Amino acid sequence: MKIEHIGIAVADMELAIKTYEQLLQTPCYKKEQVASEGVETAFFQLADSKIELLEAMHEESPIAKFILKKGEGIHHIAFEVEDIIAEMKRLSALGYQILNEVPKKGADNKLVCFLHPKSAHGVLVELCQEIK
Amino acid sequence: MKIEHIGIAVADMELAIKTYEQLLQTPCYKKEQVASEGVETAFFQLADSKIELLEAMHEESPIAKFILKKGEGIHHIAFEVEDIIAEMKRLSALGYQILNEVPKKGADNKLVCFLHPKSAHGVLVELCQEIK
Repeated sequence: MKIEHIGIAVADMELAIKTYEQLLQTPCYKKEQVASEGVETAFFQLADSKIELLEAMHEESPIAKFILKKGEGIHHIAFEVEDIIAEMKRLSALGYQILNEVPKKGADNKLVCFLHPKSAHGVLVELCQEIK
Repeated sequence: MKIEHIGIAVADMELAIKTYEQLLQTPCYKKEQVASEGVETAFFQLADSKIELLEAMHEESPIAKFILKKGEGIHHIAFEVEDIIAEMKRLSALGYQILNEVPKKGADNKLVCFLHPKSAHGVLVELCQEIK
């Protein structure tokens, strides 16, 4: 398992891209919309992991609600797994609360699911598997 | 630059270690106290990065205050740099607010400094450099 990315909720994507390009000294290499989640994403590569900026596309987006409640900041950690279905079953059997019954299509060509923050000491955990 | 670790504030270290060992399927390989910060830490290795759990040792610890205000959850992201002094100067000149004037000794044989969350869209950023 590795840290695939850290997702950061931002209010102004263009401003945030500038901030993170300067901070990380690496360019944003991809922007992608995930319409089903109502988010625009922007990615930065750091060695084997990524930083993913998330901006809400509309008020109903989970990212809009997150920012309204908590302000900008870290939204989730994503761990890459080899077999997301097997991993969902394994964690569910151990009592971790999985937020979606089946994996859904996320950004960056991934199948994803989320664990309830209660199951991970306040951290919203994403599991993701590359679609081959 | 790489993601050196993600710091997660937890209320009960032993419980959190169990949760993360099961979740990540890797053992906690080190526990270490940083008395100056009033924290106990526990580390998990994931490829080239780490998860660092942080538990307050007393009520005056920044982690105790964080949990009181926000609950358990992600506390900071740490980026590894080659030369922390040079990086602090570079970012300061660009207008990023550095929270300490000189690097301090952190956990895991590192010199560390923090950027104000206002400077990184709500994210508490740690810069760290291995002490050689």
